[in-house]
Amino acid sequence: MRATTIHGTRDIRFTEVPDPTITAPTDAIVKVVASCVCGSDLWPYRGENPITPGATIGHECVGVVEEVGADVRGFKAGDFVVVPFDHCDNTCAHCRAGAHNACVNLGFTVSGQAEYARVDQADGSLVRVDAAPDAALLPSVLTISDVMPTGWHAAVSAGVRPGGTAVVIGDGAVGLCGVLAARQLGAERVVAMSRHEPRQQIARAFGATDVVAERGEDGVAAIMDLTDGIGADSVLECVGTDQSIKTAFDIARPGSTVGFVGVPHGVELPVRRMFQKNVGLAGGMAPTRRYMDELLPLVLDGTIDPGRVFDLTLPLEEVAEGYRAMDERRAIKVMLQP
Amino acid sequence: MRATTIHGTRDIRFTEVPDPTITAPTDAIVKVVASCVCGSDLWPYRGENPITPGATIGHECVGVVEEVGADVRGFKAGDFVVVPFDHCDNTCAHCRAGAHNACVNLGFTVSGQAEYARVDQADGSLVRVDAAPDAALLPSVLTISDVMPTGWHAAVSAGVRPGGTAVVIGDGAVGLCGVLAARQLGAERVVAMSRHEPRQQIARAFGATDVVAERGEDGVAAIMDLTDGIGADSVLECVGTDQSIKTAFDIARPGSTVGFVGVPHGVELPVRRMFQKNVGLAGGMAPTRRYMDELLPLVLDGTIDPGRVFDLTLPLEEVAEGYRAMDERRAIKVMLQP
Repeated sequence: MRATTIHGTRDIRFTEVPDPTITAPTDAIVKVVASCVCGSDLWPYRGENPITPGATIGHECVGVVEEVGADVRGFKAGDFVVVPFDHCDNTCAHCRAGAHNACVNLGFTVSGQAEYARVDQADGSLVRVDAAPDAALLPSVLTISDVMPTGWHAAVSAGVRPGGTAVVIGDGAVGLCGVLAARQLGAERVVAMSRHEPRQQIARAFGATDVVAERGEDGVAAIMDLTDGIGADSVLECVGTDQSIKTAFDIARPGSTVGFVGVPHGVELPVRRMFQKNVGLAGGMAPTRRYMDELLPLVLDGTIDPGRVFDLTLPLEEVAEGYRAMDERRAIKVMLQP
Repeated sequence: MRATTIHGTRDIRFTEVPDPTITAPTDAIVKVVASCVCGSDLWPYRGENPITPGATIGHECVGVVEEVGADVRGFKAGDFVVVPFDHCDNTCAHCRAGAHNACVNLGFTVSGQAEYARVDQADGSLVRVDAAPDAALLPSVLTISDVMPTGWHAAVSAGVRPGGTAVVIGDGAVGLCGVLAARQLGAERVVAMSRHEPRQQIARAFGATDVVAERGEDGVAAIMDLTDGIGADSVLECVGTDQSIKTAFDIARPGSTVGFVGVPHGVELPVRRMFQKNVGLAGGMAPTRRYMDELLPLVLDGTIDPGRVFDLTLPLEEVAEGYRAMDERRAIKVMLQP
């Protein structure tokens, strides 16, 4: 099949690789209808994560089941499905506790930006969409494979509650979905920290009541000013850098929890401040499957429209341009279609 | 008055210092009836925290109100009171949210191991005991000034819930109170990590169902074995060293929260593991006042007897021996009486 492969720093290619095959009776093969580039794909793209040259890349996709293993009961060829980036059996002790990200049979989509993807634990992982979504709905359905549940996980982990103030650090697609999640979970005031006008617009469309363009100390001062010196009830950390983490703990009110979903890079947690102020940390890699049954219906009935984070759609073979556009911040998030 | 002062590493003296006085109309002066040595006093004692030579030390005490400032309404001379180590107005936004440790009028007991102690924000901080406790009850009442609420805070922060498994790291007085708290909050299985027979005995008396004597990797293996490879539902970290924190995150099940109350020293939080496994961190310096109204009645009616952590009582003037006994682990916790 043709697939996206990574060969070095800023070296993304669209090449021919072997088709994925059923390797366990619980597997399924999905023919990809739509996929996209994740902010976390930019870490290896920028040379900040190690890579295996020539390896496929991409972990977000939706598509049609092509083939299932002998033990797969719930899905058959032809089903339109959302594929969570982290696969799980949805039955083990960790899944039952809502920590699908730590399933004892954990797997990952490894060729999402390709013609086909293998799904481990198909029965546990996949969620069917009864009718294949039309072009207008497809982007929002695609977000259910990662970015929307990840933003949602930030909000849940940060303890967003009705009536409170939630601050979202990061105006990438995850941060914007975090804004949507915080509003949906009832936060009265949702503050998006964003310097970029197009992203500010989406944040406001997603329910942000305030936008803070400042960063670092000025950003902290702006949030403290907005909250009468108390700090935010909930902070969603959707970046993963040391600066964004420090900002998160500086603006979180004592006794609150920072919900983090940005993959941490070079982060040193401010343990003394956390101790003195009693600001906790929760979250991490999203247990995607945990939220899909809740979020997909909200997308299908139009309650939320997270697909707005896609501001560029490209043919799959132009994937390298998609990476460039996101790397250069010319695009918020890029959808790819074979 | 005569008070405990610290002059250098392992140099504790009982000396004459100026009496504390009312410095704000919200202050009270308490004549100390009983005080004690805290595990956290051992950090400066061992030279691991900076000190001001000659400064008074000690932050846990109960006693009788001697004098109140002009604005104090709820207390008068002669009242028997418990003094939380962290003073608060109990009315500000942080106190109302349960984060009394970050009160906008935060203060601390600084001469608890002395004849008199000043209390800032007396109306907010103090809790009256209607009748002065007898000798049998006094130790348990004294624990309400710090060690029992701190153990309780670890359990609350770790999300201890009925039916779950709680593991307590640390067999100092705080850890033992954590065992008591975890059991009181309904944990079905409470595992005390302790190598010391006398402490194991108290842990069992406080409700520990299991004792794990191993530390480090062996301790982790023992807990994973006890929990069928899943990990603990709640972990109470009551030490504050890098090893104990790492153990805590190694044994906490995915999606759970480590409750930490040991003052962190040289700790680097394992942020990647926290992210991948979704193990959160909560807690910190205890919001003592938050729990006093709940815990004091449990002590007064005999439901809990945290005073058992005191295994050595000394006259106040022998305080230096009290520090030595705790430093050398000859005593779990030392009560001092003027």
